[in-house]
Amino acid sequence: MYILMANKNEFDLVVIGSGPGGQKAAIQALKLGKRVAVIDANPALGGNCLHDGTIPSKSFREAIMHLSGYKERSHYGQAYRVKQNIEMRDLNDRTDGISKDIEQTIRSQLLRNKSELIVGFASFVNANTVKVTFESTERVLIAEKIIIATGTRPWRPSSFEFDGVSILDSNDILRMKKIPSSLTVVGGGVIGCEYGSMFSALGVKVSIVEQRDSILSFLDQELIESLVFQLRQQKTGIITGDKVIRCCTSPDGRAVTYLESGRRIVSEVLLVSAGRVGNVEGLNLENVGLAASNRGLITVNEYYQTSVPSIYAVGDVIGQPALASTSMEQGRRAACHAFGLLEHPFEIPLPYGIYSIPEIAMVGANENELKASKVPYEFGIARFSEMERGKIIGDRLGVLKLLFHRTTLRLLGVHIIGEGATELVHIGQAVMGFQGGIDYFVNAVFNYPTLAQVYKTAALDGWNKVVASEGLPEEAPLMDSEIH
Amino acid sequence: MYILMANKNEFDLVVIGSGPGGQKAAIQALKLGKRVAVIDANPALGGNCLHDGTIPSKSFREAIMHLSGYKERSHYGQAYRVKQNIEMRDLNDRTDGISKDIEQTIRSQLLRNKSELIVGFASFVNANTVKVTFESTERVLIAEKIIIATGTRPWRPSSFEFDGVSILDSNDILRMKKIPSSLTVVGGGVIGCEYGSMFSALGVKVSIVEQRDSILSFLDQELIESLVFQLRQQKTGIITGDKVIRCCTSPDGRAVTYLESGRRIVSEVLLVSAGRVGNVEGLNLENVGLAASNRGLITVNEYYQTSVPSIYAVGDVIGQPALASTSMEQGRRAACHAFGLLEHPFEIPLPYGIYSIPEIAMVGANENELKASKVPYEFGIARFSEMERGKIIGDRLGVLKLLFHRTTLRLLGVHIIGEGATELVHIGQAVMGFQGGIDYFVNAVFNYPTLAQVYKTAALDGWNKVVASEGLPEEAPLMDSEIH
Repeated sequence: MYILMANKNEFDLVVIGSGPGGQKAAIQALKLGKRVAVIDANPALGGNCLHDGTIPSKSFREAIMHLSGYKERSHYGQAYRVKQNIEMRDLNDRTDGISKDIEQTIRSQLLRNKSELIVGFASFVNANTVKVTFESTERVLIAEKIIIATGTRPWRPSSFEFDGVSILDSNDILRMKKIPSSLTVVGGGVIGCEYGSMFSALGVKVSIVEQRDSILSFLDQELIESLVFQLRQQKTGIITGDKVIRCCTSPDGRAVTYLESGRRIVSEVLLVSAGRVGNVEGLNLENVGLAASNRGLITVNEYYQTSVPSIYAVGDVIGQPALASTSMEQGRRAACHAFGLLEHPFEIPLPYGIYSIPEIAMVGANENELKASKVPYEFGIARFSEMERGKIIGDRLGVLKLLFHRTTLRLLGVHIIGEGATELVHIGQAVMGFQGGIDYFVNAVFNYPTLAQVYKTAALDGWNKVVASEGLPEEAPLMDSEIH
Repeated sequence: MYILMANKNEFDLVVIGSGPGGQKAAIQALKLGKRVAVIDANPALGGNCLHDGTIPSKSFREAIMHLSGYKERSHYGQAYRVKQNIEMRDLNDRTDGISKDIEQTIRSQLLRNKSELIVGFASFVNANTVKVTFESTERVLIAEKIIIATGTRPWRPSSFEFDGVSILDSNDILRMKKIPSSLTVVGGGVIGCEYGSMFSALGVKVSIVEQRDSILSFLDQELIESLVFQLRQQKTGIITGDKVIRCCTSPDGRAVTYLESGRRIVSEVLLVSAGRVGNVEGLNLENVGLAASNRGLITVNEYYQTSVPSIYAVGDVIGQPALASTSMEQGRRAACHAFGLLEHPFEIPLPYGIYSIPEIAMVGANENELKASKVPYEFGIARFSEMERGKIIGDRLGVLKLLFHRTTLRLLGVHIIGEGATELVHIGQAVMGFQGGIDYFVNAVFNYPTLAQVYKTAALDGWNKVVASEGLPEEAPLMDSEIH
């Protein structure tokens, strides 16, 4: 009897959190034949990514793209709309269905692979023991390894009086009852620019305030300028190098934002996207000798292992890059490492995707980084408007820029703005993953008419600059036979 | 005076035809500083590809996808339409604008690079001389090299009485005045399946007749079955292994098609897509000792050179694969070879893209080929319906299948059906171009949520089958350091 009871609560792996990182950690361990439990405080699996963040915002975006007729305006005119008077309900309707559908897929995948799913709040008892509390019940789990994948939540600076009506964080925004006539976004990072540009495409008067000199400052300068230009074309205000000092709600319920420069912005709604903090409260990290940073982040080594060898942490709770895509791979790798599966991972650069309107994506270095490290580089550029596919879909402003080594032709960075950017970037990523050069694109045949052809056009642009005009240097054969 | 006159008609390169192959040949030679003339019988540049074929059909398809609300039906229901009562005019309106726009882009690119553009019919005088006839004028051009890029036109079998109203070839179909209620398509190749599925998505009752045992028989069997299933779901008839023996127009103007099996199909319109023939008449090939095949195709060597060293031929006029994508690269390579630019092209496999609804794409080998050559292969599969992005866009039937070597994990083939297939296939193409394996996808991070993630899911499916379940064989390290 005692043995049976013990078995029931003994696992090879306990995963705390069922977001992207937790899911993939669990699936990997299950595929290795391990006994796994996944704990989540929310009875619906998927974490913030599925219920408040990535997925709702992307399906919201997709609904906007369709109902606003955004993509079709270059064909049918600026006033073209698929649906007049779009309401929040129109945009959220399908979001709810999609989230439920994804939750079911995650659940069935975990159950099919025989994971135990446990609802409740987890806290550490010791380095191999987790207590799960749900309502008045408690359950104690013993595990060889434990992976923390609890994610983050929006940071709510105390200078804002969040009320869920006119002053919102990014978890609140899609729960608005109606589309506001005007929106101020504090923070020109990824979340701020994504929501800012989405509401702008809906015709909302948007102002984005960023205290740094530039929105999305980690991006290639040319892409930022293009995004800023396109947002301003849609009458979005972009205020950089200025800081919010105070914010309040006016008697008629509008949000009033005071900037350091003395400017004042009045809008129906204010969205604060000022970073995120890790969900570590209640984990009792101190019981295992771990501590989180003041932003609630946990430190790990290259194998996603904390200073306690049996405890790993993956996903947003370990900090940058804090993307669902990287969290998933961190989860998978942590599980592999935890159970001794040797992996010598490829050195494949990480892609970044920003679901603003227009889309942005990048992989590898940007020009500022190459300049700073004195790499002799050249660029090749192609505009979607020159491409047959770009004209067919009506994308007039898309651009792809390839950065490559001037003498070896090796691809160093890919920067894209425009329709499909987040998908397209993976072609460049693969070439970089194999340390290939732009000669790959020069020689490859691309389906016609596709957007992917921009790679070839940009590569030829760069190649004509470097190779055809100067003659190919000795050390740079057109085709490097070693990589064959 | 004599010298000036001579210069005016002397070129390094004369290109006959301004379709994709001719354009890229000209641009490449111009970039090498050569003096180039491009001859086209049509005052509008671009060839059949731009004016009758690829581009009009793809912009027509894009208009259908939007106006029919096809992609949105899984969210809003099967009866959902963006526009009720779609007419040919709605679909062609933007096609015309797009074609004009592309023509201007081609023209300005050629002129910017200082090409001479000549309208007229070209015929060979000798291996370095071409006569151009336009109305009552004649001009004789001397050229070091000549590239034939005259393309093809639909083959019109004599058993059909083409009338441009009820019995049409693929050049006529988009010139129909109204959308027919029913359409018979003779020939289940690429063009037949593309138009068949497009009109089917518009609600036209379509029947496709193919004399072979399968439509698109060069594709992976699973993709064909999926396309057939999806077309039948839309009430499209697919008749294979049967042959048209006779066809006539009934007194009320309908097309009546008699099949060998005794079946009879009556439809408002009949589209014959029974292959294409080369445009070689009037070239006077016999003056340079060249001859075309009975289908009007010209034979070339690996450098696209005919048996006359100064004369090259590229594009559809040299036969399979006869795609705009391959024609462009043939043109570029022919020009490089013609002017002694050494190229050792990458061995990059050719992608195929089919713009049916749904889209299909492939690169590399299919299962039948691998079985026939006894390659020990395994497959990994992922369905768009399992992917977050697939759910967001509502693609419930998309599939990606990776074929790879069981022991080396090397990627051997990629087969995709579903939204974006023609773009997505280029990721697999790049990995194959560098002789990579599915371990690339296992290790890579993909933007979330993208369709590109299907590669990782499919690779993990295959990897779990081969590696995790059996243990990794000695000769297949998880990561091959040689390809780094």
